[in-house]
Amino acid sequence: MTLRVGVIGGGQLARMMIAPAVELGIDIRVLAESEGMSAQLAASDVGDYKDIETVRAFAKDVDVITFDHEHVPQKVLRSLVADGASVHPGPDALRFAQDKLDMRERLAELGVPQPDWARVSDEDELQAFLDDHGGEAVVKTPRGGYDGKGVRVVRSGSEAADWFAQLSSAESGEAGDTRSAALLVEELVSFRRELAQQIARRPSGQMVAYPVVETVQRDGVCAEVFAPAPSAGDRLMQVAEGIGRQIADGLNVTGMLAVELFETDDERVLVNELAMRPHNSGHWSQDGAVTGQFEQHLRAVADLPLGDPSPRARWSVMVNILGGPADGSFEGRFDAAMSEHPDAKIHTYGKEARPGRKVGHINATGSDLDDVVYTARAAAEHFA
Amino acid sequence: MTLRVGVIGGGQLARMMIAPAVELGIDIRVLAESEGMSAQLAASDVGDYKDIETVRAFAKDVDVITFDHEHVPQKVLRSLVADGASVHPGPDALRFAQDKLDMRERLAELGVPQPDWARVSDEDELQAFLDDHGGEAVVKTPRGGYDGKGVRVVRSGSEAADWFAQLSSAESGEAGDTRSAALLVEELVSFRRELAQQIARRPSGQMVAYPVVETVQRDGVCAEVFAPAPSAGDRLMQVAEGIGRQIADGLNVTGMLAVELFETDDERVLVNELAMRPHNSGHWSQDGAVTGQFEQHLRAVADLPLGDPSPRARWSVMVNILGGPADGSFEGRFDAAMSEHPDAKIHTYGKEARPGRKVGHINATGSDLDDVVYTARAAAEHFA
Repeated sequence: MTLRVGVIGGGQLARMMIAPAVELGIDIRVLAESEGMSAQLAASDVGDYKDIETVRAFAKDVDVITFDHEHVPQKVLRSLVADGASVHPGPDALRFAQDKLDMRERLAELGVPQPDWARVSDEDELQAFLDDHGGEAVVKTPRGGYDGKGVRVVRSGSEAADWFAQLSSAESGEAGDTRSAALLVEELVSFRRELAQQIARRPSGQMVAYPVVETVQRDGVCAEVFAPAPSAGDRLMQVAEGIGRQIADGLNVTGMLAVELFETDDERVLVNELAMRPHNSGHWSQDGAVTGQFEQHLRAVADLPLGDPSPRARWSVMVNILGGPADGSFEGRFDAAMSEHPDAKIHTYGKEARPGRKVGHINATGSDLDDVVYTARAAAEHFA
Repeated sequence: MTLRVGVIGGGQLARMMIAPAVELGIDIRVLAESEGMSAQLAASDVGDYKDIETVRAFAKDVDVITFDHEHVPQKVLRSLVADGASVHPGPDALRFAQDKLDMRERLAELGVPQPDWARVSDEDELQAFLDDHGGEAVVKTPRGGYDGKGVRVVRSGSEAADWFAQLSSAESGEAGDTRSAALLVEELVSFRRELAQQIARRPSGQMVAYPVVETVQRDGVCAEVFAPAPSAGDRLMQVAEGIGRQIADGLNVTGMLAVELFETDDERVLVNELAMRPHNSGHWSQDGAVTGQFEQHLRAVADLPLGDPSPRARWSVMVNILGGPADGSFEGRFDAAMSEHPDAKIHTYGKEARPGRKVGHINATGSDLDDVVYTARAAAEHFA
């Protein structure tokens, strides 16, 4: 019988699971938030992923449930598990990707290197942290932030006054969460560059590691990825992979795990963020690795043997396409990019182009890093 | 606006167009022969491709029509063109892939090297050809043959008596075809090996050529493909590519063209068969070329700039999976193949496994041909 994998969320990550699902012979079904989303082709249901009955109805027709995003509430996840559904990653893992304070606490227990951090409930606690850390720090809302949202650099406790006010006026995020609401504050790390380590892990515990990559963010959004991270020596590769494996195992992650890392000026590697799903930092692998992250995620959540994560070329570079406001139609620019760069791999998300919105990405591969960077950037430039 | 490509036929070739269509942002729709076919995920219509009104209704909602097979009748194709539809390949090209006698005549006009052949209408004419060609020849029904069906080696005119009888009792295949029904007879070529040359061609005339490959047939069915053809020198590569380009241009082919070739014992290259669609001999390119043949076909029929056909590795090998009758479930064998060969790329067609039926294929790539052959065969062996 054909294996059925249900993906909650109809965004581009679900969309990019469709291609490998078709080739692997997996029947992929998507619970989309609305009509016309990126993963429309496989959208078998449309509904609210926060609604238990909607999600339960979707789940009963599939063998495995996985996700396009981390926003499905714990109570929904737990009712699926109670129904006997196979949910990957499971709620006990996913909570560490949903709540940055929970993540920091758990990583501290595991002894994983991370920036100094604290749970702060008011301006005074934040000010105390600032006083201990050179007067500057990063404040984060524990939940719901992405692509730079919910993250703010502050120099005084009062600069997060609005977020503290929201905390005290709002209910605690989830039913059953009895802890007091708080913000996360982290030291402002002086870093040379940002890295990302991807790991795939099956329910059986089998793991494979992709080579650590360098990520370049602009305005808090991933702009470019270089795979593997240029001039990364064996030590750095091993340290990053070790951190990834430790977290995947320690948090019982199933599916793809992306660990965003800082490489500091003093040559330490510190964990910045986690994602338990295919991740922008791994898009290069679609064309640059023997097994792309979307195929790997499907294999992992379905508890199939994992594929080879080895690079297929010396270098792979990914450049995001951020929609508009260029002149001319998206299609016209598409044509020009294809025409001038026949070796660039163009991936589109079926989204309307809007300034700053991720609407696709370009992958390029080859033996000369400068050439590969040029191809990916020049192809992407047609869309800028 | 999103480009909509309609594929007539719901088999594995249509299925394998889904993955690149999703990534390119093409809205792919399939007219499937029945429910539950290989390309089910994109099946927007189910109906008879021989019925003009069914096909016309399907065509009116897409921008481009293309095919999973060559069996759509000329009268249906011509009514689509009369409606103003963009049909690729068009009826004037496709007839040469539909009728082997038409193909032989046209290639003779173009001066393309091919086996000696003749149009034979009765046993006497066939016997005369046999007498001129060493008493042995290949007889083919001009239409409807595939995978060894409709092909027979004969040593006397009477050995094709049943086919001649069918010819005289049947109507000529298509309305408007006024020529007398006949069979095709070809000299039995003494060949070293079989090759295949793939070309992609846009309506604008842009062409790209894949490297010529070696194909191995068993019982008339493609079993293995080696890309590029081992020990093919520059001369052979150029001759094969030249033949491919000449045919693509001469027949005004749009989309993918596969030219099956004999490499003879006396070092000539002769055209065996043509296919105007993605072809089994090009499946290696899904994982072994910068642009796979399914992506390339979509780009070509949609008149988008063609992708780079260069190999991504020194060697690529494809081995077909012919279904059953092995012990154990298909899924169990799938698991074993994935587990033991994490670098093998497994492509499945969503078909029920039956002895001798193509239900998928394995691609492997690498720098050492023996290793690559071993991986592809060993992974496929799990399904045998």
